[in-house]
Amino acid sequence: MEIRLKKDERIDDLEYEGLKIIQNKNGFCFGIDAVLLSDFAKEIKQGSNVLDLGTGTGILGILLCKKTNLKTITGVEIQKDVYDMAKRSIKLNNLENKFLVINEDIKTLDKKLELQSFDAIVTNPPYKKNSTGLKNDNEYKIISRHEVKCNLEDVIRVSSKLLKNNGKLYMVHRPERIKDIIINLEKYKMQIKEIRFVHPNINKKPNMVLIKAVKQGRDFLNVQQPLFVYNLDNTYTDEILKIYHKER
Amino acid sequence: MEIRLKKDERIDDLEYEGLKIIQNKNGFCFGIDAVLLSDFAKEIKQGSNVLDLGTGTGILGILLCKKTNLKTITGVEIQKDVYDMAKRSIKLNNLENKFLVINEDIKTLDKKLELQSFDAIVTNPPYKKNSTGLKNDNEYKIISRHEVKCNLEDVIRVSSKLLKNNGKLYMVHRPERIKDIIINLEKYKMQIKEIRFVHPNINKKPNMVLIKAVKQGRDFLNVQQPLFVYNLDNTYTDEILKIYHKER
Repeated sequence: MEIRLKKDERIDDLEYEGLKIIQNKNGFCFGIDAVLLSDFAKEIKQGSNVLDLGTGTGILGILLCKKTNLKTITGVEIQKDVYDMAKRSIKLNNLENKFLVINEDIKTLDKKLELQSFDAIVTNPPYKKNSTGLKNDNEYKIISRHEVKCNLEDVIRVSSKLLKNNGKLYMVHRPERIKDIIINLEKYKMQIKEIRFVHPNINKKPNMVLIKAVKQGRDFLNVQQPLFVYNLDNTYTDEILKIYHKER
Repeated sequence: MEIRLKKDERIDDLEYEGLKIIQNKNGFCFGIDAVLLSDFAKEIKQGSNVLDLGTGTGILGILLCKKTNLKTITGVEIQKDVYDMAKRSIKLNNLENKFLVINEDIKTLDKKLELQSFDAIVTNPPYKKNSTGLKNDNEYKIISRHEVKCNLEDVIRVSSKLLKNNGKLYMVHRPERIKDIIINLEKYKMQIKEIRFVHPNINKKPNMVLIKAVKQGRDFLNVQQPLFVYNLDNTYTDEILKIYHKER
């Protein structure tokens, strides 16, 4: 099968089950957040119809196709060039039978897709409030990182509409947004069930947070043990090696 | 000076600056949460007028009198016998000139004290929702642990009314209540500024959380590095030893 690469694109090996991904060296390349989220969401049940809000290069969906027994996953990506790249990566991994990517706007997705039709939603949305941080990157990176095209409230509002009752939302975000996450989940009748902070090491503040919420779930929140990325000697922790399938 | 002990009461040495406290062996004895909160709140500024909501035996106020240069602290305790015990502990430590304890109900405190008159509020409120958990303790313990006489919303509502603008609220609570804490702070125009989880050790879920909020503060939240109580060999961590003034 021939997959064409465009200017500045390359194929990266995910070193897991033979998976590969196309990325643009000037664009937003996937990071540890997508990998950690795929692990956090690996409890997604067999036969689930899953939605990925803000698919980007498709990394999260590609990993979930191998880590779970999901039935279908629909990726939503607003940037045409990035959407096109995800489509080719899906083909490259022979996942066209379960992974569909659509070039749509998250904000109006509840008018395009059937309401209450998904068992689970995963999302690694832009982290930064539109007004904060330096925005001197190129347009692709800005849209991937900043709340330009959609914000946290859009993601949660649309998730609540598209999830079945008792459907699960799995999200990775920044710790300083936990207030906004909790307030918006409450506003849209989603129960926050799990919070797991990710820290560079045991002495550092968290720099990511993993969130699980359930549509109209029972009120019980579990704050999990922290996830540490590095040991104090800067080697990866055992848990990270396991997530990357590189156990010692 | 003669301090009378009642039935089942004893004087415990705090092993810090000669401080002592009267506790009842059948009542609610102070724990590590009060000590950690006193450390978390030790940034309280010189000359501050402080309010302690749910004083209990007075442990938090007694520690803060030594750890900060506060001007006055007013402790509020609804249980007459416990209030009386706190009063005697204050006398025992010669703190009557700065630490006043009143036998009042937190819920109606905004009708008793001057609004917007405190620089800081500290509180170690009952943790458990009234409907949850076994309530087979004696009445003193139930009132100290369960939201019988006041709940989280009462504490936050009254704090917001009694704090000056830019006044600080320092609270210790349970991690599973973080959603209720954030939602109520938002409701009463308090900005959550710091969250610090306390874990038994690096492999365990947090069992306490320290919260700092500011009345009408700027929106910026900092999730701090975790506080670990024990090392993996079950000795206290250096940070805990330092908080207890028992550095190695």
